[in-house]
Amino acid sequence: MIKTAVMGYGTIGSGVAEILDKNRDVIASQAGQEVELKYVLDLREFPDSPVADKIVHDFKVIEQDEEVKIVVETMGGLNPAYPFVKACLMAGKHVVTSNKALVAAHGTELLAIARKKHVNFFFEASVGGGIPIIRPLYRCLMGERIEEITGILNGTTNFILTKMDKEGESFENALKEAQNLGYAERNPEADVEGHDTCRKIAILTAMATGKEVNYEDIYTEGITRITDIDFKYAEKMGTSVKLFGTSRIKDGRVLAYVAPVMINKTSPLYSVNDVFNGILVKGNMLGTSMFYGSGAGKLPTGSAVVADIIEAAQNLKKNVPMGWTDEKQAIESMDQAQFRYFVRAAGSYRNKEQDVKNAFGQVEVIELYGMDEFAFLTAQMAEGEFRKVAVSYDSREQERSEYGIKQMIRAVL
Amino acid sequence: MIKTAVMGYGTIGSGVAEILDKNRDVIASQAGQEVELKYVLDLREFPDSPVADKIVHDFKVIEQDEEVKIVVETMGGLNPAYPFVKACLMAGKHVVTSNKALVAAHGTELLAIARKKHVNFFFEASVGGGIPIIRPLYRCLMGERIEEITGILNGTTNFILTKMDKEGESFENALKEAQNLGYAERNPEADVEGHDTCRKIAILTAMATGKEVNYEDIYTEGITRITDIDFKYAEKMGTSVKLFGTSRIKDGRVLAYVAPVMINKTSPLYSVNDVFNGILVKGNMLGTSMFYGSGAGKLPTGSAVVADIIEAAQNLKKNVPMGWTDEKQAIESMDQAQFRYFVRAAGSYRNKEQDVKNAFGQVEVIELYGMDEFAFLTAQMAEGEFRKVAVSYDSREQERSEYGIKQMIRAVL
Repeated sequence: MIKTAVMGYGTIGSGVAEILDKNRDVIASQAGQEVELKYVLDLREFPDSPVADKIVHDFKVIEQDEEVKIVVETMGGLNPAYPFVKACLMAGKHVVTSNKALVAAHGTELLAIARKKHVNFFFEASVGGGIPIIRPLYRCLMGERIEEITGILNGTTNFILTKMDKEGESFENALKEAQNLGYAERNPEADVEGHDTCRKIAILTAMATGKEVNYEDIYTEGITRITDIDFKYAEKMGTSVKLFGTSRIKDGRVLAYVAPVMINKTSPLYSVNDVFNGILVKGNMLGTSMFYGSGAGKLPTGSAVVADIIEAAQNLKKNVPMGWTDEKQAIESMDQAQFRYFVRAAGSYRNKEQDVKNAFGQVEVIELYGMDEFAFLTAQMAEGEFRKVAVSYDSREQERSEYGIKQMIRAVL
Repeated sequence: MIKTAVMGYGTIGSGVAEILDKNRDVIASQAGQEVELKYVLDLREFPDSPVADKIVHDFKVIEQDEEVKIVVETMGGLNPAYPFVKACLMAGKHVVTSNKALVAAHGTELLAIARKKHVNFFFEASVGGGIPIIRPLYRCLMGERIEEITGILNGTTNFILTKMDKEGESFENALKEAQNLGYAERNPEADVEGHDTCRKIAILTAMATGKEVNYEDIYTEGITRITDIDFKYAEKMGTSVKLFGTSRIKDGRVLAYVAPVMINKTSPLYSVNDVFNGILVKGNMLGTSMFYGSGAGKLPTGSAVVADIIEAAQNLKKNVPMGWTDEKQAIESMDQAQFRYFVRAAGSYRNKEQDVKNAFGQVEVIELYGMDEFAFLTAQMAEGEFRKVAVSYDSREQERSEYGIKQMIRAVL
């Protein structure tokens, strides 16, 4: 029998406790022995819960109990998650976490400690909730050179964008609905500004390259400036807009970004809707495959944690090679990134046609009825180049006291 | 350095050789040492190929070379694949295969020999081509009770159905196009009659239950009786028809079948088109996740084989627990299966309304303009029950010398 402890009895922590109980037999048969939850660390009491008699408030109880071999961290945030996890690893305990902020900020150090102590630091649940994605990268796509990872990695923003797309809602109303349903926090910044997606794509990029990725190096743009008008054009174009976390890897060079991207039906990610996540992985031999499922939620995320517990139990005395080293992975400037660009500009195309062509070359024009604006889709060009011509177009318009570009969305079409 | 041999230098075998060469460095770093291809067994010579100097014609060369630790079987069929694979395992060599016929027919025995000999018998490439699905079942969804696996597991039939759906083609024309493009064999029976899908869902079911599944117990119906007219109705209904291999597992009871099924946009499998495969896995905690990608092709399938080679290399002296035992898994009668049914019947609904209601109860009627027939969608009922009422409807029509039911397609809507 293996004893575990869960730190943090919130949504995910309680899900883990529930799964350890409900799937006890399956877990025992896979882990090779029974897995028992010995402690639950939380500041609160849970007198009516099934773990009432396991609650402890003092981390030292877990740290110092040699019977506890595997510790689950589902507190979130960095403090005290980081010192607690570090102390557990130093004490020779395996750690499993669902905490993407922790992995993105301190993964390199924690992985190194785990290696030194011959234990494991696993974090399948930190990206894609219940979708297996970390483990497929080191267990299934082993012979592949990964060339691209592109994911819809945040269920909250995907729910909002789906509402805007399918029901014509404004960003504000869709956000309110997400908050009412409990999908979005009252302070939704981490989701809607793309920070959550940024940490997740940083983790996936580090897994794919084997090197440390500083998430602050990744260009990150959220969905707050996407409007219902953008989706009116998208509908006419047969496209949609999704918040992507993307990494393109070639010859050791990495371009990574988080941004809303316009895609069409030929993308497998087009039909990833509502709170679901989808992660596309392109290997040099495999081509494109996609992993799809529930990116959040108590039991799906808990299930990913439990899979990590089982892998730790199968490797109690051995560090499973995975993760990344402390070698730094440089991230290319966004200026290098190649896209097409969906642009909305003030005025009528009839009057602006020559200006548009002078600045952007050949474009596809999209016009909606009764709007004092028009839109166009440029050919593919580097983002640095696009910015330059966009500034030149804008300044020319301003010279004539007219409005210029109102919106730009990167497009992969 | 680990030495391997490939038996069968066809599409997949040559893909494996190419990947072992092109991704040599990645593979070495994952396997912990270099993996070298020592022999290629084939009846033919390949004087202009990169493996020209590795070709052998006598299986004994491989069987008796103690340096060869891992043997890849990509010959297909049962003879001589089965005796060769068995002999390799008996000789203490790991075997990796892409051969679903072999795994479905002899997997139980070959897994048992591998266990006894402390080697591995891996077959990731036998289902879903390059899509990781076998390994996720034993490496990623370990804490889950698998409740359902439903897959679009055959690229050829999915290509044909997609052509019929999107371009209104007849089955015959779509099949011809698939043959011209090399997606379908000149004798397409194994694909279009569902036999290929049957073996794959049998393997996945055995992986999920841990018990032997006899693929002959699985009800199997192909796509040869699906017509362009069915797709005209489907278009009006916003549905599509896909060839499913499905297993539903509950309390140790398994219902498994292969059949064309009508689905709508709410299914993640709806947008799996052309030659792509998609496999949906439902766990009791995880909910639904889906694995999507190239279900066939030289390099994708080769990539899955190479992942198996790497896992064998990582476990040279150890049998990794996976697969199933010789305990038999019973498969429930198809009469128990619950579906809705899409039915096309001769005549006009106006004249037949009362007969339809008497036999099938409340139905949703779908009529196309200018057809001497109509269609309806029943409520959910057991297939045994459906057959009974369908026979009673038909015999009543025949009494009046009229035609009855022209088509039935199971529907999950």
